[in-house]
Amino acid sequence: MRLRILLLTLATAGAIFAQDDVLAHVAAHADRFGEISRQIWENPELGYHETKSSALLQQELRANGFDVKNDLAGMPTAFTATFGSGKPVIALMGEFDALPGLSQKVEPKIDPVTPGAPGHGCGHNLLGSASALAAVAIKEEMQARGLKGTLRYYGTPAEEGGGGKIYMLHAGLFKDVDAVLAWHPGDSNRVNLGSLLANNGGRFRFYGVAAHAAAAPDKGRSALDGAMIMLNAVEFLREHVPQETRIHYIISNGGAAPNVVPAFAEVNLVARNPDAEVLDGIWERIMNCARAGALASGTRMEFVQGTNYSNVLPNDTLSDVLARAMQKAGGYQYTPQEKQFADEIEQTLPGPVRSPGPDKVTTDKSETVGSASSDAGDVSWVVPTAQFIAATFVPGVGAHTWQGAACAGSSIGRKGMVVAARTLALGAVELFEKPEEVAEAHVAFQKRLAGRHWSTRIAADSKPPLDYAVK
Amino acid sequence: MRLRILLLTLATAGAIFAQDDVLAHVAAHADRFGEISRQIWENPELGYHETKSSALLQQELRANGFDVKNDLAGMPTAFTATFGSGKPVIALMGEFDALPGLSQKVEPKIDPVTPGAPGHGCGHNLLGSASALAAVAIKEEMQARGLKGTLRYYGTPAEEGGGGKIYMLHAGLFKDVDAVLAWHPGDSNRVNLGSLLANNGGRFRFYGVAAHAAAAPDKGRSALDGAMIMLNAVEFLREHVPQETRIHYIISNGGAAPNVVPAFAEVNLVARNPDAEVLDGIWERIMNCARAGALASGTRMEFVQGTNYSNVLPNDTLSDVLARAMQKAGGYQYTPQEKQFADEIEQTLPGPVRSPGPDKVTTDKSETVGSASSDAGDVSWVVPTAQFIAATFVPGVGAHTWQGAACAGSSIGRKGMVVAARTLALGAVELFEKPEEVAEAHVAFQKRLAGRHWSTRIAADSKPPLDYAVK
Amino acid sequence: MRLRILLLTLATAGAIFAQDDVLAHVAAHADRFGEISRQIWENPELGYHETKSSALLQQELRANGFDVKNDLAGMPTAFTATFGSGKPVIALMGEFDALPGLSQKVEPKIDPVTPGAPGHGCGHNLLGSASALAAVAIKEEMQARGLKGTLRYYGTPAEEGGGGKIYMLHAGLFKDVDAVLAWHPGDSNRVNLGSLLANNGGRFRFYGVAAHAAAAPDKGRSALDGAMIMLNAVEFLREHVPQETRIHYIISNGGAAPNVVPAFAEVNLVARNPDAEVLDGIWERIMNCARAGALASGTRMEFVQGTNYSNVLPNDTLSDVLARAMQKAGGYQYTPQEKQFADEIEQTLPGPVRSPGPDKVTTDKSETVGSASSDAGDVSWVVPTAQFIAATFVPGVGAHTWQGAACAGSSIGRKGMVVAARTLALGAVELFEKPEEVAEAHVAFQKRLAGRHWSTRIAADSKPPLDYAVK
Amino acid sequence: MRLRILLLTLATAGAIFAQDDVLAHVAAHADRFGEISRQIWENPELGYHETKSSALLQQELRANGFDVKNDLAGMPTAFTATFGSGKPVIALMGEFDALPGLSQKVEPKIDPVTPGAPGHGCGHNLLGSASALAAVAIKEEMQARGLKGTLRYYGTPAEEGGGGKIYMLHAGLFKDVDAVLAWHPGDSNRVNLGSLLANNGGRFRFYGVAAHAAAAPDKGRSALDGAMIMLNAVEFLREHVPQETRIHYIISNGGAAPNVVPAFAEVNLVARNPDAEVLDGIWERIMNCARAGALASGTRMEFVQGTNYSNVLPNDTLSDVLARAMQKAGGYQYTPQEKQFADEIEQTLPGPVRSPGPDKVTTDKSETVGSASSDAGDVSWVVPTAQFIAATFVPGVGAHTWQGAACAGSSIGRKGMVVAARTLALGAVELFEKPEEVAEAHVAFQKRLAGRHWSTRIAADSKPPLDYAVK
Repeated sequence: MRLRILLLTLATAGAIFAQDDVLAHVAAHADRFGEISRQIWENPELGYHETKSSALLQQELRANGFDVKNDLAGMPTAFTATFGSGKPVIALMGEFDALPGLSQKVEPKIDPVTPGAPGHGCGHNLLGSASALAAVAIKEEMQARGLKGTLRYYGTPAEEGGGGKIYMLHAGLFKDVDAVLAWHPGDSNRVNLGSLLANNGGRFRFYGVAAHAAAAPDKGRSALDGAMIMLNAVEFLREHVPQETRIHYIISNGGAAPNVVPAFAEVNLVARNPDAEVLDGIWERIMNCARAGALASGTRMEFVQGTNYSNVLPNDTLSDVLARAMQKAGGYQYTPQEKQFADEIEQTLPGPVRSPGPDKVTTDKSETVGSASSDAGDVSWVVPTAQFIAATFVPGVGAHTWQGAACAGSSIGRKGMVVAARTLALGAVELFEKPEEVAEAHVAFQKRLAGRHWSTRIAADSKPPLDYAVK
Repeated sequence: MRLRILLLTLATAGAIFAQDDVLAHVAAHADRFGEISRQIWENPELGYHETKSSALLQQELRANGFDVKNDLAGMPTAFTATFGSGKPVIALMGEFDALPGLSQKVEPKIDPVTPGAPGHGCGHNLLGSASALAAVAIKEEMQARGLKGTLRYYGTPAEEGGGGKIYMLHAGLFKDVDAVLAWHPGDSNRVNLGSLLANNGGRFRFYGVAAHAAAAPDKGRSALDGAMIMLNAVEFLREHVPQETRIHYIISNGGAAPNVVPAFAEVNLVARNPDAEVLDGIWERIMNCARAGALASGTRMEFVQGTNYSNVLPNDTLSDVLARAMQKAGGYQYTPQEKQFADEIEQTLPGPVRSPGPDKVTTDKSETVGSASSDAGDVSWVVPTAQFIAATFVPGVGAHTWQGAACAGSSIGRKGMVVAARTLALGAVELFEKPEEVAEAHVAFQKRLAGRHWSTRIAADSKPPLDYAVK
Repeated sequence: MRLRILLLTLATAGAIFAQDDVLAHVAAHADRFGEISRQIWENPELGYHETKSSALLQQELRANGFDVKNDLAGMPTAFTATFGSGKPVIALMGEFDALPGLSQKVEPKIDPVTPGAPGHGCGHNLLGSASALAAVAIKEEMQARGLKGTLRYYGTPAEEGGGGKIYMLHAGLFKDVDAVLAWHPGDSNRVNLGSLLANNGGRFRFYGVAAHAAAAPDKGRSALDGAMIMLNAVEFLREHVPQETRIHYIISNGGAAPNVVPAFAEVNLVARNPDAEVLDGIWERIMNCARAGALASGTRMEFVQGTNYSNVLPNDTLSDVLARAMQKAGGYQYTPQEKQFADEIEQTLPGPVRSPGPDKVTTDKSETVGSASSDAGDVSWVVPTAQFIAATFVPGVGAHTWQGAACAGSSIGRKGMVVAARTLALGAVELFEKPEEVAEAHVAFQKRLAGRHWSTRIAADSKPPLDYAVK
Repeated sequence: MRLRILLLTLATAGAIFAQDDVLAHVAAHADRFGEISRQIWENPELGYHETKSSALLQQELRANGFDVKNDLAGMPTAFTATFGSGKPVIALMGEFDALPGLSQKVEPKIDPVTPGAPGHGCGHNLLGSASALAAVAIKEEMQARGLKGTLRYYGTPAEEGGGGKIYMLHAGLFKDVDAVLAWHPGDSNRVNLGSLLANNGGRFRFYGVAAHAAAAPDKGRSALDGAMIMLNAVEFLREHVPQETRIHYIISNGGAAPNVVPAFAEVNLVARNPDAEVLDGIWERIMNCARAGALASGTRMEFVQGTNYSNVLPNDTLSDVLARAMQKAGGYQYTPQEKQFADEIEQTLPGPVRSPGPDKVTTDKSETVGSASSDAGDVSWVVPTAQFIAATFVPGVGAHTWQGAACAGSSIGRKGMVVAARTLALGAVELFEKPEEVAEAHVAFQKRLAGRHWSTRIAADSKPPLDYAVK
């Protein structure tokens, strides 16, 4: 084996040296973008309301010579920042929206900054900032080395259910892109052929007949009954769908006053499955549960389409590029204080932690399916896309938790963010250097598509639901 | 008031003396029919399986000179026993079926003769026997006094859900009848314009897809899920129907083995309301719950019509006849042993008892609605019919209880049975004496019908469900 | 009979003339208080937020010489207005709070002034104003005739669930009162021995464990599951409580976001029964359903006491006083326009209307149980109280409907309000004239109490839930 | 690779020749035992009622010189058949019970011999016969070659829920056994380190208060309500347990008559998980659902322990032995008629079939978890045990299906049975030849146990539930 490694090393030596330069650029801007991630973390903004967060990133990229276009596809906080011209067009993506109710201090115990307020439990303050940091570094490297092509940063709002990328896709904003390199905060440094669950969701609105609940309950037709009969039926459905399926919901409106038979009730439900086609079949059965709820309660049901994200189509070529990049980028070490913080966070986790530490980098070709969903999945069906995670969270910490929010505001989060930026930078530079890999990525893309193409329940002419996160 | 009573007394004196004679006839046969009621009680037979009970009554009536026809309208245990000829045709009805699971000794504590076996919790051993006792006494009185007309005893099987009378109605067996005098065991002696709930029922059969419940639950479609979703929905319905409505059910088949997704499940459900038309509307909503169960579970639902009994249409004229008869018939006293038995039974009752004692007779024109249902209701829509209760049960004891079964086998039951026989006998004799009252009863009948006519969901050409009680 | 009526007429002639005077006083102020009712209707304020409505009534009573005390028992909008001194102390009560979501124009079709805004669907704009109108008239009559005693108007906030009167009772504000004359808007003019349902309610809060609903649903314990299991169980309970019982609820919090296992959920539930003791037993079973929800879902349940109103204890003596008064007060006629409005409103009602017209006055001793609940019930257990309804709504219109809100703002509502004021005025003057009736009322009160006394689940030292209507 | 194979071949040549002899013995008896499997298939007997099936196998083994002991551990159909003496003690296991409702002809379409009757859907007619066939062949080989040790056949009744092996374990009947070689009918020939799900189950009995469902539903406490509230809660549980968990149930008693509030209801529920300890935690939550059902419905719940099977502890050493044996044993070919039958069966299967054909043999060290459960799992915690499957079913056919029953009676089933017998025979002979492998197996066993030991909820002093399959 030693011989082969040696040969490889020699063959890639030139590239490696070049890559080292881009890492230097990353290093030069790391503190600045760490600071930006901190500002976004301190002012968590919900989907489509990321006015300050988006503005901050735009301003930084504009200041670094990018051509920024904003207010795109009907979304005030969507933007692109472009550098260079011609082929290939390599894209990075940046998210920056927060989650409701996850306000949290940088403390190893649950302690909101403002109870009930939003927080960066998914680390998107790091996501957008790391991609921007990488973009600046890549641009400097392209300039330094005269690399040809176009680098574009997509500021994609409302990943947490608003589906900003889908509206950007519908608007044709990804039309000329050759490859997308993406990442997400996680609890380890890892590149593989991972996917994410396809999801679909929306609001089931039940309309009944109000009546005084004491005087004439027999005259009323309860919309809440409709919702509850539906949901009871959905619970019975669970046994009879593939076990990887997820169905989860809230009752977003459960009636106005207990002494009135509810004339209106609303269920907000999301279903997921690794395979969008399987999900379609399950979705029809959920719709039947909703219809049954209306039928049995004598009410009327109306469905309002919500989030519909595709599963992620992995790209074998780009995944190899990122795997090489991350192996080069490497992990990082905790300081003693960070170690203590991590240990204390671990105490709060439910089960034993099996994730490797932040100093480890794992790259393989396993086809895991993450349990989340993302509109990055939709991009992956239109443009060759690869995605990785970097260790912004303490091992064992999941997304959408107070622990995630705490890490995302800590130095640990910022160190993970630099790993991400280094990986993205190394990967993108490799693609600019070797356009043939871009072509290969396209072949791999077609192979995975296998004749299928992107489809979504979000109508091409529909408006982004700008108030989805606050209504 | 004394004057009016005196006049009445004089005017009715002849009749009263005659009636006294019929009471003497009742007295003469009371022990014999008490013994018959005891034999039926000791051998409780479920609906359509009342072979011995029916045979016993037939034999007794035949022995007393009645012309007995049996195996009627497709029902081996149905029979008529006729005496006399020409108009008017006055009918008595006798039921003799037992209830499942109500086996009970004549003891003031729950103590089955045979655990799980049937028992006479509704007192039908007394019902059929008292009517037969009355029939024999009336016949003797008719013979003694040369009263014209036809007396007919209807041996009506399977009142407890099998609807024997409906098939007899469909077969035209009540076509020539002018008036029906009926009674039912109860906890007091009472004549009023009472009705009973209309009911409707049947079996909701769900057909799903079997699958190994551990290996491939997602391949299965659970019929039991269909049943449970239906029933959950029915529970939600309760709030939104008139409060006098009753909906009750069992799961008569809830799957074969826990490790197989059930391909079959069955719900046996009955609904009731004082008004058959209101019940129709509610029934349609119950059907929608069943359809919803099938829709939501991906199964198929099939409805098999069961019991459908009309509410009782009271007859003002006949009710007056019976009120007079019962006032004359009078109540009875407990012996000290009976009193002790009654007191001990009362200890086992849930709430305070408000029923008057067996020595009281209450007659009024209140239009109460009893909470039971009976195929006597269907008869009442076709022939002028009046019905009363006699105190065969200790005050406070309801039908379909172990206490009812205990009383029905006791001397208390037999004393109440004699009150019933005396009332029926006096009433029938009055009708034979005064055919004008029969004509009046017909006018009162038309007034209550108000242009409506009998309808039933039991198809005219359907076969009696001879195995309904055992399958 | 004619003789007896004549004697009665002569005997009461003096009083009648005097009463005519109080009716003249009512007439003199009727327009003014009609205008006040209109102003309150135009600015509907929810319970404990009736700042302007309360101020308006206070100002009017103060201007008419009443001694006004406000901000009572911890409730800024509670007040009393007193005239005179010494015994007897006769009280009137005025409510003035609106209902959420019942904004409605004075139109015979559903048409909110402001969609979703509060409205006077229960006619409390008339309630408080009519009692104030009566108070002013009684005071003038007391002054004119030198009648002894104390007249007190209670401005009682938040009848719609906030229980203002209960806090006034706890504060001892009714301690010296001898009799309360009360009324409520309705669809006819009627005095009887009616009661209202006892009720009890509150918030069932479930606390679970949040988890990402896709990534780790098995780590979560859903508070919404707790709520739904509880409510499903409550639905099963319905069959097994007395049929007059009412149980109704909303899900006031059904989770925050569908992708998070809900850590919090809340049910707001009210139960009612004509008998507070029976209700206690039912309530314990509802609590068991809630405990079962927590147990089965692995969550924690916490109950927060809400409304708890007693049933109304009728007072036979005071009811007779009011019956006489209303027979004297009489009803009223519709103008052609009002008739048309009434006819159009009737078109919108679900079933056939059986209520008599506004020109009719019905007084009897029937002991009906209205299907609503009121904190006037609590007053009736502490002070002899009688209550009647006046025809402020078109026949067939129920409380808590848009039709009720429309009528309450119309001239029909104001005419009904005058009937109410006339009845209250006549009744109160009779009590001041004949203190022996007050003593009789006390005897009747003790008889109804039968050794029982007022109890409430609202702790004596608890603070009024000033924000109950808006949180 | 060829060189290595050659060396291997030479090294194992002696053994191979010896093994060929045992295969000859298998061949000599194959028709006879095929015929026995056919007789058992034609007379399918439910668990603990396998009188004829057990007798047939006993008689055959006795006739072949085995020492047969029957009526063991309280189970009339349990037996052992022993040959030889001393160490090592190598055991085979034979099951022979049928499944309810799976009567099926040897036809490629659903077509019961007797509708509703039992059938060999799990192929146990082959299971017991193949092990017996192997036993006879091994015995002859031991005699022929003078191999030392004890061979024992365990006739283990009622694997389908009755847990015969557990009572045999409790009775100490496996105490001296060194290794168990086991197999199960399947749709391919495969040896790996597979496990089966741990399971636990039993009957949840609810006791309520009967009442007439129309007359006094408020006096009743419905046992069926208890069951349904429990089961609704269980459905909500599904989302919050690890996705590999299985929970399935029937309502084995859902009330006696719809007009009586059910005083008794019963749920028969089984839960499974790959890990018995995880299952314990889930089970406690299911118990809480049952307790909640009782609490919320005012009924009493009683749990009766049913099946409790451990997951299978694989044995690495014995699995290697079996892998070698099966590679040697080889698969088989379909005749044209069998191929056609297989193709037609495949048409009836729900999804695409991925199992290899009967000519393939797959041996690896994958640690799969089959979705069934078996009391062979319990044996595997007490004695080193390895288990494999042989292709008795057409590829894609699962256990507990009519297709399985059809195959089990066909020549395909009997060919698969011979593969099993060859594999068992080769494996056992290897263990008798090389006692050191038995010692190794013990070390591997301890390693897998990792300090844990067998535990079961079936009390050591409990009687086998001999009527479990028929009650």
